[in-house]
Amino acid sequence: MQRPGRALSRMRAATPLVQNITNFVAMNTVANALLAIGASPAMVHAREEAAEFAAIADALSINIGTLSADWIESMAEAAAAASAAGRPWVLDPVAVGATRFRRRTGERLLALGPTLIRGNASEIIALGQAEGGSGRGVDAADQVAAAEAAAVALAIRSGAVVAVTGAVDFVTDGRRAARIANGHALMPRVTALGCALTGVAAAFLGARCEPFDGTVAALAYFGLAGEQAADGTAGPGSFAVRFIDALAGIDPDALDAGARIVEADSPERSR
Amino acid sequence: MQRPGRALSRMRAATPLVQNITNFVAMNTVANALLAIGASPAMVHAREEAAEFAAIADALSINIGTLSADWIESMAEAAAAASAAGRPWVLDPVAVGATRFRRRTGERLLALGPTLIRGNASEIIALGQAEGGSGRGVDAADQVAAAEAAAVALAIRSGAVVAVTGAVDFVTDGRRAARIANGHALMPRVTALGCALTGVAAAFLGARCEPFDGTVAALAYFGLAGEQAADGTAGPGSFAVRFIDALAGIDPDALDAGARIVEADSPERSR
Amino acid sequence: MQRPGRALSRMRAATPLVQNITNFVAMNTVANALLAIGASPAMVHAREEAAEFAAIADALSINIGTLSADWIESMAEAAAAASAAGRPWVLDPVAVGATRFRRRTGERLLALGPTLIRGNASEIIALGQAEGGSGRGVDAADQVAAAEAAAVALAIRSGAVVAVTGAVDFVTDGRRAARIANGHALMPRVTALGCALTGVAAAFLGARCEPFDGTVAALAYFGLAGEQAADGTAGPGSFAVRFIDALAGIDPDALDAGARIVEADSPERSR
Repeated sequence: MQRPGRALSRMRAATPLVQNITNFVAMNTVANALLAIGASPAMVHAREEAAEFAAIADALSINIGTLSADWIESMAEAAAAASAAGRPWVLDPVAVGATRFRRRTGERLLALGPTLIRGNASEIIALGQAEGGSGRGVDAADQVAAAEAAAVALAIRSGAVVAVTGAVDFVTDGRRAARIANGHALMPRVTALGCALTGVAAAFLGARCEPFDGTVAALAYFGLAGEQAADGTAGPGSFAVRFIDALAGIDPDALDAGARIVEADSPERSR
Repeated sequence: MQRPGRALSRMRAATPLVQNITNFVAMNTVANALLAIGASPAMVHAREEAAEFAAIADALSINIGTLSADWIESMAEAAAAASAAGRPWVLDPVAVGATRFRRRTGERLLALGPTLIRGNASEIIALGQAEGGSGRGVDAADQVAAAEAAAVALAIRSGAVVAVTGAVDFVTDGRRAARIANGHALMPRVTALGCALTGVAAAFLGARCEPFDGTVAALAYFGLAGEQAADGTAGPGSFAVRFIDALAGIDPDALDAGARIVEADSPERSR
Repeated sequence: MQRPGRALSRMRAATPLVQNITNFVAMNTVANALLAIGASPAMVHAREEAAEFAAIADALSINIGTLSADWIESMAEAAAAASAAGRPWVLDPVAVGATRFRRRTGERLLALGPTLIRGNASEIIALGQAEGGSGRGVDAADQVAAAEAAAVALAIRSGAVVAVTGAVDFVTDGRRAARIANGHALMPRVTALGCALTGVAAAFLGARCEPFDGTVAALAYFGLAGEQAADGTAGPGSFAVRFIDALAGIDPDALDAGARIVEADSPERSR
């Protein structure tokens, strides 16, 4: 596996323009995370322009956290435009199991061929099923390990890289798999960090990192920033501020030194 | 009156799932406040799913800060679904006196039977009148004391607990009343803290705290966090960060020690 | 030129009510910046109330960062209502050159006669042209100096004060011009600070500062806050927090002492 610092260097050199159709809760945090890592964020979701913009952005990130009928059309048109232009796009199926509306939307977007799917265990399990999921908001009631088989199956079925994030992240493209042990328990105490991670991963793909390696690097980088931010912090408010500082401050050497990535058994072999 | 720390313990043990239909300015802050206190926030407002979700959430919070015609339908349907499912819901009538559109919306939601109404003095006065209010954005031009009679009348008329927040908060259910003296002058210098308080109160109700006692406890807790955050702070930016830290850090004993709650004369007797 | 501290005193004494129709990314930051400076923010954008509110607000700020068809009507109606009521309004043409939808919207709003136009170099150049701009999200790919001629032409054509912000800001009303050298390189690493500056400038105009002098004062004040916030900061996360503290902390004397304003040659003479 490639060193994650190499992917970080590549991303920073590219300063990728990342279009985000993300939820209202997360927009500010996603934009600040992308600026902190050295990428260029654009929040463009109106139906009148989303597809046009997707063809000029380096990557597209779609997050279904706060949905509306109009936005779903924008998401679908932007995803199609990104695919047509050969640009990577990432799907973040927030709380996809919670309501019928979300399940239908998740399935529709999945059919458009995302390059990467990033969710918590409950979301990846729900997206892989016709029915299911815990229905419990955006929390991950399920554990990552319980979602590994679902992730592999989803990757094989969709052709996407699938990343299940939690205490230990799991990434697979159906052939390869890796676990990333970086991160900190304060991260789920701050809203929108998962959404921000989706945007950060999109930036790595937008810099034309190979999708599996780029995703693994993005997850290690994000988790390492969480570890650095937690050191000596007074609570989740201070942590959120220091986290943005850490994203900006980590350089490729620090990422290589701090990344805790373990290649997992080949999913195909282990099945 | 029950000790507020007991309500805090109960809320933390329940980790209630709180659905918020709140304004765009406040969403991030409300979510982070709910995560900091140990609750689980969900921002679900699309008409296609708001009512479905309200039936599975432990409590619902509705805030009219940034309105649109579509969202008003979502609010009304979610409120009805919460009531039908026996779940508490909270109304935050932001700037309800400022425009005709807001007055109409406030009256419509009020008729749906909120468990708790939380507003500043101007908003509670405006909600209690056919016409009125200061029309001055979201500031409280009126003082809490001036709104006490309006609050009692509104509680009796609506059957809701009514909380008027300001330098000294006033809470009444029409029979009982209390004043909470916790808080700090920096709090109104940070946007969306009132909206966050509405979400926090919803979490206490979602944990099945008795509505009057739970509201009093939530207000004392929130105000005490403001006092702790203000200690040695450099300005409203630092204060906002430290406030989230304080919400996470206060435990039930600290709340019991720091709460400044005074039972007021019975509203019925004093009239 | 008037001392900028005088304009700051005037703005603080007036506590202007500023209506903002701004983008979803920026709403929280704009509101907090306005509260920090001592103004009163209101985010009112629904078509049912935007124009009604514009007639009672002291100033209106319109930012096209996240557009939708509905909101464009609200923007146009609010701008017309502000003009009819003799209230100043500010246009922030975010990424106006990026899509056809934005170019059309920018031109439509420009025709309604803003008091002030505030953008980066790429945006001012794009707004001054039928076609053009770099199309690169919200970044300023162009330098301020390259936009000075476009700014003067736009000011003469529109009757507005035009402010081009960047490393050194340029402000002109077509007759007079000034450059403001305050600011710090971390400012563009935090999202929505440009949008917040638009709101802050609207507050100065809402306090009935003369538009050119008031804009120059607002820009110097904002840049000086950036300089103070950057001093000893650990990264863009901490910087953003300290920036809000600095906005609240700077007093008129400190502004007069720290402002770096240079009157430029008369645009008319230099042409």
